[in-house]
Amino acid sequence: MEKLQLRINRKRLEQSIHTLGAIGVNEHGGLDRTTFTDAELAARDWLKKELERTGLALYVDEAANIWGRREGKNQTKSMVFGSHIDTVPNGGKYDGALGVLIALEIMNVLQEEGVQTKHPFELVSFSAEEPNPFGLSTFGSRAISGKLTAAHLVGVKDVAGTLVTDALTKAGGNPDQFDLCVRSKEDFAAYVEVHIEQGKRLLNTDIPIGVVTAITGIYREEVRINGVANHAGTTLMEDRSDALVAAAQLISALEEICKTYPAKELVGTIGKLDTYPNSANIIPGEVVLAVEIRGETVEQIAEARALWDQQKADISQKRDIRIEASTKLNQAPAQMSDTVMEVSEREAKQLGLASMRLGSMAGHDAAHMASLTKSGMIFVPSLDGKSHCPEEESRMSDIEKAANVLLQTLLTLDEQED
Amino acid sequence: MEKLQLRINRKRLEQSIHTLGAIGVNEHGGLDRTTFTDAELAARDWLKKELERTGLALYVDEAANIWGRREGKNQTKSMVFGSHIDTVPNGGKYDGALGVLIALEIMNVLQEEGVQTKHPFELVSFSAEEPNPFGLSTFGSRAISGKLTAAHLVGVKDVAGTLVTDALTKAGGNPDQFDLCVRSKEDFAAYVEVHIEQGKRLLNTDIPIGVVTAITGIYREEVRINGVANHAGTTLMEDRSDALVAAAQLISALEEICKTYPAKELVGTIGKLDTYPNSANIIPGEVVLAVEIRGETVEQIAEARALWDQQKADISQKRDIRIEASTKLNQAPAQMSDTVMEVSEREAKQLGLASMRLGSMAGHDAAHMASLTKSGMIFVPSLDGKSHCPEEESRMSDIEKAANVLLQTLLTLDEQED
Repeated sequence: MEKLQLRINRKRLEQSIHTLGAIGVNEHGGLDRTTFTDAELAARDWLKKELERTGLALYVDEAANIWGRREGKNQTKSMVFGSHIDTVPNGGKYDGALGVLIALEIMNVLQEEGVQTKHPFELVSFSAEEPNPFGLSTFGSRAISGKLTAAHLVGVKDVAGTLVTDALTKAGGNPDQFDLCVRSKEDFAAYVEVHIEQGKRLLNTDIPIGVVTAITGIYREEVRINGVANHAGTTLMEDRSDALVAAAQLISALEEICKTYPAKELVGTIGKLDTYPNSANIIPGEVVLAVEIRGETVEQIAEARALWDQQKADISQKRDIRIEASTKLNQAPAQMSDTVMEVSEREAKQLGLASMRLGSMAGHDAAHMASLTKSGMIFVPSLDGKSHCPEEESRMSDIEKAANVLLQTLLTLDEQED
Repeated sequence: MEKLQLRINRKRLEQSIHTLGAIGVNEHGGLDRTTFTDAELAARDWLKKELERTGLALYVDEAANIWGRREGKNQTKSMVFGSHIDTVPNGGKYDGALGVLIALEIMNVLQEEGVQTKHPFELVSFSAEEPNPFGLSTFGSRAISGKLTAAHLVGVKDVAGTLVTDALTKAGGNPDQFDLCVRSKEDFAAYVEVHIEQGKRLLNTDIPIGVVTAITGIYREEVRINGVANHAGTTLMEDRSDALVAAAQLISALEEICKTYPAKELVGTIGKLDTYPNSANIIPGEVVLAVEIRGETVEQIAEARALWDQQKADISQKRDIRIEASTKLNQAPAQMSDTVMEVSEREAKQLGLASMRLGSMAGHDAAHMASLTKSGMIFVPSLDGKSHCPEEESRMSDIEKAANVLLQTLLTLDEQED
């Protein structure tokens, strides 16, 4: 068959989504497949068997990333594609898994049709992409890009006291030789990942294919507001230094900054707020906020941060209350490869599908792969924009479209790239 | 000795403040003696031993209130005085305890001097005056005045799942015969309670004796804001239903209402705020607030509540977010007895002490005792106006003055009342 005519098998893909989506189901119908749990290990076993059944060379690296390799005509850099199969607690069956299952389906098509590619093709399922009890998200992609090293694993435990090194060993990794998993720019020709959008931009515009321009940058800080705890009855309003009313002004200010910022993809969230002593009749003496600002460019984040810092200073001065901030994360946005974007768009068009460029507002393994090779992502519309919950869903018709765009994108990149 | 010459023993009182103040000390130097905790039970045991040592008839009622009785010449109504020994979390050693320890000291003086009173004198230490994990403050005084009944205890638990009935039993109460603790108007001739002011009015005017005119009215409600939890990255600002930003507007609105209200003694506080799921990268889906409004008159509270209800409705409508409120407490202001006020003022004057009348901005057991008997309170200046914190303090010289005013007030009431 002409490469251009190749299409994925929707039925087989649907079946694999169904099968993997049954591993780790909880009583709410969500998936509890947090990294290195028994359910996640079961999912790994299932995937490894599938890779072998497809006739790929199975390989688990020191970071427990699972690789399935299909040789090409040349012993050159490989074309890599995949995602992750771990979930958040009570998550859905598409976030991550979809990218791995589409990669598996593409491998099945290539095998069936005996397609000879120039580059070796490699499916990858990265370890621990989601936030997890060890506090180490995008574990596998950070490891192979040299950003997470053996030194970072020393003494790291979950709340139950399990060492991450023990959990990693159980999953097939090797903490003793962890740094051997690091890959170089010579290893890969490109990386392309299909993922659900987790937002509503594709859905609202009725466009099936999202071509990702950049992976969001994430800035996180902890803000501590120090007022004076006092009796809620006997302290006149004018005598109060209430940390929670100061916090309320900050929360409103952050919303205002982000709502009025010209770029829609600049978002700010205060997801965590702790009040002390948190008692009905005591004026709050201290409030701690977890503040997050995400944006598509370093400049966007810097501008929003400057406005935010100004608000903190103003509120601190007007209320005569101490407000301290400490940075917890400052992850720059990662630009996706123009080549991958252009090829994906062209292949979508060839297939008669509309596409739009959009930023990824969530973090992804592609952000780390971008430091190793030309990287890109293709987004699938998320019904109702929901993710990280049992209701997370994408239509099979949209999934099929994205899978075919990925297949054609990989074949074109295979031809045109060195 | 002439009754007029009787004085309390400052050294002994200071020692007892020191001793009881050491039970439940935490690492911040504050007291963790929340009701029915091990520390509070230890304080109860200490008090019971002291009452027996003083030669009083010890009695613990069904609500676990501790009574120490000294008989009078007549088997008539008793003169009651005391307060409570439980604290807020990380509280101080004067709030409540001072009233009980002054009562104990007065009993010691009466015993030493062999004073024969007309009425029986009863010291009372009320159970669970402070807000507590069971959500039942002024527990003991509400119980004996018939406002808190066995029916209110059914199924009530703290967050750890402990039933209040089990905790009460452990403290010496009897939930099975709870309603037997109810007292009648025939039981008491008067109730007088010494307490720290917990504000700055006495301190600012340099007056040692506060004569309380009324106990503040307290309205409490729980407000539940139901937004939609969602991914903090992929959800555009315009697509959010963030329960915490709605809460922030409510907090600011309550402050504005109370700050601009003409009466200074109208105050409003949100002391407790819980966010769900309270995770840095998830938009808050639900926030629960504990809201409190206090005022000196029913009208003040009603006016402030009307403004507050309007704000809740406006914010709910503008943000298209569900805001539900449920009343937790609606305690009308309680007028103190003119007789007790006049006698206290006269006795202060006899002792050469200045006094001033003032409203209590805090709730007290005296509010409930006022429905059973002539009730009054004597306030002691609070240094820096602080209370419910480790820094809570009153000068021993002021404490001694208030104790002697209470002693003389009780002896005069004993003579003049039936």
